[in-house]
Amino acid sequence: MNNQPIGICDSGIGGLTVAKEIIKSLPSENIIYLGDTARVPYGVRDKETITKFAKELVKFLINKNVKAIVVACNTISATCLPELQKNSPVPVIGVIKSTVDEVVNKLKSKTIGVIGTRATINSRSYETEIKNLSDKTVIFSQACPLLVPLIEEGFSTHLETKIVAEEYLNFFDDKNIDTLILGCTHYPMIKKLIQEIIGNNIKIIDSTKPATLQLIKVLKTNNLIGNNSHPTRRFFFTDITPQTEKTINIFFEGKLSGKLEKINL
Amino acid sequence: MNNQPIGICDSGIGGLTVAKEIIKSLPSENIIYLGDTARVPYGVRDKETITKFAKELVKFLINKNVKAIVVACNTISATCLPELQKNSPVPVIGVIKSTVDEVVNKLKSKTIGVIGTRATINSRSYETEIKNLSDKTVIFSQACPLLVPLIEEGFSTHLETKIVAEEYLNFFDDKNIDTLILGCTHYPMIKKLIQEIIGNNIKIIDSTKPATLQLIKVLKTNNLIGNNSHPTRRFFFTDITPQTEKTINIFFEGKLSGKLEKINL
Repeated sequence: MNNQPIGICDSGIGGLTVAKEIIKSLPSENIIYLGDTARVPYGVRDKETITKFAKELVKFLINKNVKAIVVACNTISATCLPELQKNSPVPVIGVIKSTVDEVVNKLKSKTIGVIGTRATINSRSYETEIKNLSDKTVIFSQACPLLVPLIEEGFSTHLETKIVAEEYLNFFDDKNIDTLILGCTHYPMIKKLIQEIIGNNIKIIDSTKPATLQLIKVLKTNNLIGNNSHPTRRFFFTDITPQTEKTINIFFEGKLSGKLEKINL
Repeated sequence: MNNQPIGICDSGIGGLTVAKEIIKSLPSENIIYLGDTARVPYGVRDKETITKFAKELVKFLINKNVKAIVVACNTISATCLPELQKNSPVPVIGVIKSTVDEVVNKLKSKTIGVIGTRATINSRSYETEIKNLSDKTVIFSQACPLLVPLIEEGFSTHLETKIVAEEYLNFFDDKNIDTLILGCTHYPMIKKLIQEIIGNNIKIIDSTKPATLQLIKVLKTNNLIGNNSHPTRRFFFTDITPQTEKTINIFFEGKLSGKLEKINL
């Protein structure tokens, strides 16, 4: 039993997909979410910049006395997770390894498509992790840099998002993939659209459940699970506009049970 | 005669449209450009965040000993120009007032459309400046938040940019405007596309020429014009990825006569 909060960080609002799953699975835990909406998107920036920003996010959460940190962002996980783990006094969990484990070991996928930001795809992190588990698996990766701005803009159901997504996903038409990994925590917000485009025969996997299961495992192993105070959930953002609130409300279907707070990093 | 450089700042690469015009008109001047590519786009963020970032840009340029600063960004000009001017020892020139002067006093436009980022449009800066000069002018404004990410992504000629632009510009179909102000320094990069969509009968005006003329006037008035050293041009960015370089090259047609330098703010 440990009443310290669980920290979750992301470049913006995409990580809320992971936060939602963690809250569902661990409803009694205290949660602190931090989204860097003042500097989103991360996935178009270079490694040095992403690492600098990510360290600031982790530092903020550590100062809030969290017991573990979930980096609910593929771009950060792909770019600098070991560096964040090395400098943290508490466990830091990324989203890539657990997702790959799910796909390769549980689903036994053989031909895998991965979509993500340019930084995630260029890092080749998914390839590396998949090849570590199974060197016979075939992987096709495609960067989809404009999906994050479109989703952050609240355009998930707009025609242009469909066109942009089709343009990116056409890449897989002749690849014969059995599984598509949504390698960005924003993408579950347009999962239905993606499924429509790629067809129902391809399984779509995202990081929300695998990362949550990994978090539970780490908390149990370190004897950190459980909270016997009334659970509080705080949502910090580095920028809050009416659009931010609107998009969060659309995404959480108006049921975000916690306070939005603006902070400077 | 004053050999100090002219400083130009923007949220990203859009301000290069203004830099290009300044270099063309004042080829002997030293130039320092600063684009905040690590935190672009600004126009979707709130006033407090934009002001904080803009002050950091101006501070950087002042530390580089510039003789005048051109804020080559409508979002910053619309959000916090007076605050930047108040705190600067050198003249700070925005892009809105000079553009409005051109449209109202020289072109005698009567029904004006304005497009810009959400922050620019919400600030109502164009309306205020236009009404100051001519209270009979009719103004219609439309925020186009996704055009900046699309242009920064190098997608200017892609189908989705056309569809996004059409969706935004359809707003003007029944407005009978005679002039459209491109209230964002990125938009000249897709001026041809915008002209195609709105038709040839509507004049399109952007800030590049008016802001340059305003700069020349301010330099002359303050006896700051001219440089008798060999002119140098330095281009600083807070983030440089291969994509940044690619987009700059497309935009400058490979002729950016200066060095790209990465800095942290």
